[in-house]
Amino acid sequence: MRIYKKAFLPARFAANGLNCGIKKTGEFDLALIYSETMARVCCCITANKIKAAPLQVNMLHMKRARGFRAIVANSGNANCFTGRQGITDAGSTALSLAEILKVKKEEVLVASTGIIGRRLPLGKIQKAVPKLVKGLSVKGIDNASRAIMTTDTVPKKVTVRFNIGDRPVTICGIAKGAGMIAPNMATMLTFITTDAFISQGALDKALGISVEESFNCITVDGCMSTNDTVIIMANGASGNTLIDKGKNFDIFLKALKLVCLELAKMIVRDAEGSTKFIEIKVIGARSRDDAKKAALAIANSSLFKTAVFGENPNFGRVVAAVGASDAEFEERRLKVKMSSLNRKDVKIQVSLGSGVSSVTIYTSDLTPEYIKINAEYN
Amino acid sequence: MRIYKKAFLPARFAANGLNCGIKKTGEFDLALIYSETMARVCCCITANKIKAAPLQVNMLHMKRARGFRAIVANSGNANCFTGRQGITDAGSTALSLAEILKVKKEEVLVASTGIIGRRLPLGKIQKAVPKLVKGLSVKGIDNASRAIMTTDTVPKKVTVRFNIGDRPVTICGIAKGAGMIAPNMATMLTFITTDAFISQGALDKALGISVEESFNCITVDGCMSTNDTVIIMANGASGNTLIDKGKNFDIFLKALKLVCLELAKMIVRDAEGSTKFIEIKVIGARSRDDAKKAALAIANSSLFKTAVFGENPNFGRVVAAVGASDAEFEERRLKVKMSSLNRKDVKIQVSLGSGVSSVTIYTSDLTPEYIKINAEYN
Repeated sequence: MRIYKKAFLPARFAANGLNCGIKKTGEFDLALIYSETMARVCCCITANKIKAAPLQVNMLHMKRARGFRAIVANSGNANCFTGRQGITDAGSTALSLAEILKVKKEEVLVASTGIIGRRLPLGKIQKAVPKLVKGLSVKGIDNASRAIMTTDTVPKKVTVRFNIGDRPVTICGIAKGAGMIAPNMATMLTFITTDAFISQGALDKALGISVEESFNCITVDGCMSTNDTVIIMANGASGNTLIDKGKNFDIFLKALKLVCLELAKMIVRDAEGSTKFIEIKVIGARSRDDAKKAALAIANSSLFKTAVFGENPNFGRVVAAVGASDAEFEERRLKVKMSSLNRKDVKIQVSLGSGVSSVTIYTSDLTPEYIKINAEYN
Repeated sequence: MRIYKKAFLPARFAANGLNCGIKKTGEFDLALIYSETMARVCCCITANKIKAAPLQVNMLHMKRARGFRAIVANSGNANCFTGRQGITDAGSTALSLAEILKVKKEEVLVASTGIIGRRLPLGKIQKAVPKLVKGLSVKGIDNASRAIMTTDTVPKKVTVRFNIGDRPVTICGIAKGAGMIAPNMATMLTFITTDAFISQGALDKALGISVEESFNCITVDGCMSTNDTVIIMANGASGNTLIDKGKNFDIFLKALKLVCLELAKMIVRDAEGSTKFIEIKVIGARSRDDAKKAALAIANSSLFKTAVFGENPNFGRVVAAVGASDAEFEERRLKVKMSSLNRKDVKIQVSLGSGVSSVTIYTSDLTPEYIKINAEYN
């Protein structure tokens, strides 16, 4: 299994990205990922009760279609809290792509990220669609990864290659920042492509586990977005024997976890205004759920995050955060260890002394720069 | 019913405050509140699983004593996460006072606020106790209110007077800052004295309701402290007819609510680095609990608090915070109103459109100054 810190697409995928005019700066704002053949898809979305229009359209398409061909995503506008008009606009975006790609409307998935509460500039998107499709290429994944950025300072991409039997299989992921607390920005998008031939059940299971152990283990400010979406497309072009259970599934899962965790860590490292990358490991918990509660309580404590920024190793803030969580523990068994806070990478380990479960959460510090960036945003 | 923005003690109470040497600056750090006669007491404490030593000692004293005579409180050291030694030190503090006041040890309650995880400097406290008792006076409540301050910039005190029948009754409260996010500071203390003659049941009920509608409705950073304590002492010296139920209870409750809400608002106004006082009203909720979930989700959103600091009236942050809470609502019924953000006092009203319950939560903005103060604290 090899990991590459760049994006190259699996067999029979193509992509593109360009500026369609949503971003006035001329930066890319429209991305397309395309599979030459029908692909199986699995999709994980935000638990926020407010779900942006593209998420609602995707839920409908997932019910109707038997396979999928494309994902179209725009940045600069979240198409969220936009009512029925928003749903119509997201559906029209899919339709525009479907017509030119000569596929069914419901075989196209949509995603948006950016400002909440403003109507999607559908005309600009529709006008750019022919050029977007015409420019599809294997190398276009770099442009696509740039086109989904909002306040990200760097594009986020990773590729993992491995063998199933004697066939090489590729998984490629691109992402944009989550929990970066850009004002009204909503937020994390991840698109994963693979040429693996895999059953729907195995694909669903692998993505569920991978997301739980990666994107669900990062937090910047504890704010849950309205647009968070992770989509994986598997087109089977590798020609490997079907991945379903057993050893082949384990290999695929390991690779997918790696892709997701690398992207998740990149998102935390690029959090707005952050100066530290913080790993919080909680061990000795009664259950993974308890470990996660304790770790997230620390990771979301402004008090703790400010202490790390100030390189102030007082553990009282960690203790108070754990105590305020719902995690079960006894005070006399609680142990806290911290690495030196003077480095970019900081590690905290908390032992609850209540059991054998553990979890690792990744977060960033809270800085004056973060507040400045967000307060001044217009 | 009259409200005074200063502290004067009810009949047959006395108080004092001085520097015993915990604070190197010479600022007051030891407070005493004393009742000449046995007082009924009710005590509300933090829900944090880590409970500082004085809270544990008080729980023991509350079980054993039939009446109470004094509260002794120090600032500069929280006596928290200090193990058995901490419990012994808190007990010894109570004993020192009891001996000089000639009362039983369990008739003295204790409180501490300040840095977590350091041993209480018991010797300094014990040495200062004779002077502390000797200086007891009716006007000493001002010194006491100063002696419980940590990062507070102003002492917090309020008095309410009203009649029960033809007897004047006084309720006086002093407080120190809560959720002010001073590094390792732990945090809110409130001491209320009254000369009302009131049954234990009525006292418990009135304090429970008042705390829920005041101190439990404020948040600065969502961090729950290990030392939060509200104590009320009622010594009956007013000679009013017993307050138990009916109209007299309603009058007492109204006055106590007023005292608690005024102190709670003072705490929010004095939050570190804050430039705004924010009132968040959630209406149209299915239950008060739902309203509170939604309001606290907004109040604890760094995204929202930063937006208010930047006077950036984008409502997407409010919508996303409500959506991420457990409150029940439908997106199409959700309504958000905001006052102008250019003023010191900001009001947000959110209507969930799901019912008739409501709640009001008070909070402050999140500013670079707040981070600076806390990151640089030693």
